[in-house]
Amino acid sequence: MKLALIGYGNVGKALARLLALERKSYPFRITAIHTARHGTAYGPDGLTQDPAFGPPAASVEEFLDRAAAEVLVELTPLNPVNGEPAISHIRAAFARRMQVVTANKGPIAHAYAALNEEAARAGVLFRFEATVMDGAPVFNLVRRTLPAVRILGFIGSLNSTTRICIEAMRRGQSLEEGIRQARAMRLTEADASYDIDGWDAAAKTAALANVLMDARLTPQQVSTRGIRRLTPERLAELRAKGKTVCLVSRARRVNGQVRLRVRAEVLNENDILACLPGSSNLLLLQTDQMGTIGVFSVSPGIQQTAYGVFADLVEVFETQGQAREKLQRTRAC
Amino acid sequence: MKLALIGYGNVGKALARLLALERKSYPFRITAIHTARHGTAYGPDGLTQDPAFGPPAASVEEFLDRAAAEVLVELTPLNPVNGEPAISHIRAAFARRMQVVTANKGPIAHAYAALNEEAARAGVLFRFEATVMDGAPVFNLVRRTLPAVRILGFIGSLNSTTRICIEAMRRGQSLEEGIRQARAMRLTEADASYDIDGWDAAAKTAALANVLMDARLTPQQVSTRGIRRLTPERLAELRAKGKTVCLVSRARRVNGQVRLRVRAEVLNENDILACLPGSSNLLLLQTDQMGTIGVFSVSPGIQQTAYGVFADLVEVFETQGQAREKLQRTRAC
Repeated sequence: MKLALIGYGNVGKALARLLALERKSYPFRITAIHTARHGTAYGPDGLTQDPAFGPPAASVEEFLDRAAAEVLVELTPLNPVNGEPAISHIRAAFARRMQVVTANKGPIAHAYAALNEEAARAGVLFRFEATVMDGAPVFNLVRRTLPAVRILGFIGSLNSTTRICIEAMRRGQSLEEGIRQARAMRLTEADASYDIDGWDAAAKTAALANVLMDARLTPQQVSTRGIRRLTPERLAELRAKGKTVCLVSRARRVNGQVRLRVRAEVLNENDILACLPGSSNLLLLQTDQMGTIGVFSVSPGIQQTAYGVFADLVEVFETQGQAREKLQRTRAC
Repeated sequence: MKLALIGYGNVGKALARLLALERKSYPFRITAIHTARHGTAYGPDGLTQDPAFGPPAASVEEFLDRAAAEVLVELTPLNPVNGEPAISHIRAAFARRMQVVTANKGPIAHAYAALNEEAARAGVLFRFEATVMDGAPVFNLVRRTLPAVRILGFIGSLNSTTRICIEAMRRGQSLEEGIRQARAMRLTEADASYDIDGWDAAAKTAALANVLMDARLTPQQVSTRGIRRLTPERLAELRAKGKTVCLVSRARRVNGQVRLRVRAEVLNENDILACLPGSSNLLLLQTDQMGTIGVFSVSPGIQQTAYGVFADLVEVFETQGQAREKLQRTRAC
């Protein structure tokens, strides 16, 4: 199965390593990569993990046409304002009847309902497991293992950088020191304010609500406050009372409307949201049939995010296989 | 899809309620129920939730032949010694090319590898999501959302009764009082020693290891110690140090051999295994590609166990649908 990548940063390189590792079981080939920084690389027979980039394609449309791949893997960085240009990349792929897998939460947070309908019209799959929980099963968990279940709401700790910063401040270090540590763990971008001010968490909250609760909301519609005002002194006071702080996402339905918020909440140290180490993410799903179930990933990193993309690619591959089989059986008639 | 139930206790009745609730979306019909206590009921057009039982079938074979259902739903109580007679019930169904869904952990803990091979030979599905985590996705999670992932080991808190008992003893109540509370919550059988001495946890540990790690072990091969010697005094001492106790299941591979143990472990109060309330179960899966991911169910009850059976029935139904479609397409030729 031929893959065209847009974006080739840490996640893209980790994905290329994983695909090489699983080559025997899954015949995935990266045949084209388009990047803003390095230019564009084509290799119909499969590119190496460290390909030679030529001049950039004039447009994403030109790139996709020349790539002639079956799947677009969209790995550009998050634009929290409006999800572009990733949304346009995905639409360009749908227009070419390409399947799409993305690790970019922007399109899910800003345009999920529309993109989902466009994918259905194009008769292709649109998958995004890696966007919210660093590859831990969330969307696939609900879709593939919880039939007939209605998601009534959720509570989550979805931002790793703020967890690292709060741990650092509980040790008496400064917020800036915490940010440095998160950056060293490659958890946060050069500008950490997206994380600290809660916008990363807001985007993930909107994405989850759009997919699991048909919320049709944007990150701007999430009531959001970050941890910027939090101090080591405040955390020391709380610690003395057996309490801590966690940046918590909450979704609930109020008179048919989905309400979303992100807050630095004071929690008991033994609260399930607080007791995971380091960069761990945790999500509690409140359901009608299954009560409250939770899923978490312990100190995930780039490799887990890449695995989330891989898991989606496997589903695309198996679905294509079934479709091909149908076609062959029909032709055989 | 016609279902034959063996066993009709709390889980069976909760399943019947759930099936009635989902009738519009899923055309499942219970057409026969065989019980040890009440006798046998047949209703080709679908039995009510409170059916009239006639004399018991002379044998399970006679019951299955007369039931003429597509799926056996095995809901008899656990026999922790050898998993019988549930294993024989399941084999009798396979011999009739019936699909099998069970909530009984005995067969998975004692004979999974053999039953799985027999199901494959018979060309039917064998599903058991409700056996270990009260319906929370575990087996379906790994099979359907974690492709190419290898389970290296796991750590779990899998027994609800001991959690309730330890909570009671931390409040200064006796073990017996805790058992009374667990019984009132319908978490434990008349004889609570299976829970207190760790045999329920050992059976779940063997079941998980057999399915997820191809361990081919029985509960008797799990190194098991329960919580019988635990006292309110000991828990008070630990509490003063911010610690508590939890019955913990552990699986790991040592020189290619899977080693399983169940122990009452001393944990920090904010350990992820300790910080869930009441009857909650939690499982940490250690994987090669996805690091450590966890799943838990908050204070699950009978309804969740019934949902686990339902989720398996939905998979059987959809798989049958695909098979039927293939057949029709072939016949159409």
